[in-house]
Amino acid sequence: MSGHIHYDRERELLCLLDQRALPLTIREVECASASEAIAAIKNMVVRGAPAIGATAAWACVLAAKDAESGPDWRESLDASLSAISQARPTAVNLAWAVKRMANVAKNASSLAEARKIWLAEAKAIQAEDEAICRKIGANGAALLRDGDTVLTHCNAGALATADYGTALGVIRAAVEQGKKISVIADETRPLLQGARLTAWELARDHIPVTLACDNACALLMSRGMVQLVITGADRIAANGDTANKIGTCGVAIIASYFNIPFYIAAPISSIDFAAKNGADIPIETRDALEVLELDGKRIAPQDVSAFNFAFDITPQNLIRGIITEAGILRPPYAPAIAALSPAL
Amino acid sequence: MSGHIHYDRERELLCLLDQRALPLTIREVECASASEAIAAIKNMVVRGAPAIGATAAWACVLAAKDAESGPDWRESLDASLSAISQARPTAVNLAWAVKRMANVAKNASSLAEARKIWLAEAKAIQAEDEAICRKIGANGAALLRDGDTVLTHCNAGALATADYGTALGVIRAAVEQGKKISVIADETRPLLQGARLTAWELARDHIPVTLACDNACALLMSRGMVQLVITGADRIAANGDTANKIGTCGVAIIASYFNIPFYIAAPISSIDFAAKNGADIPIETRDALEVLELDGKRIAPQDVSAFNFAFDITPQNLIRGIITEAGILRPPYAPAIAALSPAL
Repeated sequence: MSGHIHYDRERELLCLLDQRALPLTIREVECASASEAIAAIKNMVVRGAPAIGATAAWACVLAAKDAESGPDWRESLDASLSAISQARPTAVNLAWAVKRMANVAKNASSLAEARKIWLAEAKAIQAEDEAICRKIGANGAALLRDGDTVLTHCNAGALATADYGTALGVIRAAVEQGKKISVIADETRPLLQGARLTAWELARDHIPVTLACDNACALLMSRGMVQLVITGADRIAANGDTANKIGTCGVAIIASYFNIPFYIAAPISSIDFAAKNGADIPIETRDALEVLELDGKRIAPQDVSAFNFAFDITPQNLIRGIITEAGILRPPYAPAIAALSPAL
Repeated sequence: MSGHIHYDRERELLCLLDQRALPLTIREVECASASEAIAAIKNMVVRGAPAIGATAAWACVLAAKDAESGPDWRESLDASLSAISQARPTAVNLAWAVKRMANVAKNASSLAEARKIWLAEAKAIQAEDEAICRKIGANGAALLRDGDTVLTHCNAGALATADYGTALGVIRAAVEQGKKISVIADETRPLLQGARLTAWELARDHIPVTLACDNACALLMSRGMVQLVITGADRIAANGDTANKIGTCGVAIIASYFNIPFYIAAPISSIDFAAKNGADIPIETRDALEVLELDGKRIAPQDVSAFNFAFDITPQNLIRGIITEAGILRPPYAPAIAALSPAL
């Protein structure tokens, strides 16, 4: 999946594999401006916390291009960067990437200098993200035993990161070590990232994957068909409470009931050191039509509405460990997370 | 929804509202023979344990019509009745209805006599089912307080019974008592009975209903948005373990985590006194295409398969009460259920 986010320097375009159309259609969306990149993040052309972090970095590069035509480039950039970091509310990687970009260019004396710095920095963020995923994979692989079946929710794979994936990175690393691992992919309503993205990228890698409706979780676990759960994260609070795709908390509760270990795999950039606990994490509400329609076709009565919270919060006490590039964090999470804080 | 199952005596046809097409299309499927009625049950033209019990009774009437043309009517009927009771494996009401039909006609000296008895008996089963639902409603309504929001999974409504419903019967009865009740309908993948049927029949009755993806359950409960859960049942074992639509067990586990009471509403005909516990209840596995496709359109990669268990088992200790026409059964369920056994 390498290259699902790539910047075409010659044409000055950010090219994104359109994840809304996968797996049946392979097409790209080209963003020529920061606002087009913001729209692509909002509309979920690209999704997954680390992937939208990398996309945000490239959006800053586009913002610098946009600023060329304006009267005051610093003012234009400030406005664009603020808009980029607010494209979606839950994944903290968005704000993290924009902050990092702003920081490296804060002493730039010209727009041209800022652009040059940003081209290099966005490239670095993307390359680092892949390297981080490989470290997460290496750190987590030991948790998987030969023959295990891992259940995952949503897509925390190559498509959710620069490449390789977080939760799927752990699975890939275990498979690369020669372990036989099977995966159960929750389909993940309403946008079916499990059915469309996780199943697709694992099948391409010849890792055995079987799809299950989100509501099959308890039955599969009750029958001993799941040895471990690993999901990604959109934002981790300082106490370990974790926001991830809607349904994750339910999976964690059910896994706890059946005494099946539940792990989060995420880069340190997904930690929000300023969020004390899950209550400090904003949960995005999306258009009810995503639930009421499928592929533009109504599946519910016309006069009925729907809830469409995009994420939920898994309480830290349900999480057996948080697999990061710096190792596996174990409870109590507060001191383990504080030790990673850049402020220390 | 009265009349969604009706027998046209003049044309000798069993007419079923096609629940696969709801809510966007209102159409009927007409069954002229027992095998057509069996197919309608298998294909889920009609579903819901009490509704397929009533349909099975009418299928027996059609079997008697089929037997007219055969050489040995008793042999023909025996074969048909056995096929009817095996149309789907999990709901015990199917076998219950066929057994009742066989029993009332066991001394019939002619096919004509059996048919006459069966026409009356099928009509009685259907009428009784509606009366039973109204009793279940009356018995359960006191559990709901004015202003409560009830979460339900799948469809245990008028469409799942002769009329009125079991879980939705309790809600209807509370509303008829003047209580303001709101409902959250789990959409219930893969066949979306919540989105298509529960939302539709509640909206028709002007009972406020909001749809939610199955995986939103934990978030909604964590926010205090659900006061009570009520679902139907496909089969209840002698110890109270309950088979119901896939996902029910997960809802019960999550409700227990948040200390939200979880109730089953079902007629006594859904109790399998011979099943010691949940392990004795067969779980139907249906075609994976129901998960992999939606409305005939593929939603998953071509080379990936899916689990499609149609039901799961909720352990009795997660159930706060079982609302029946004879009252609300409370733990310990074994003696409460034994007291209802027809053998006693």
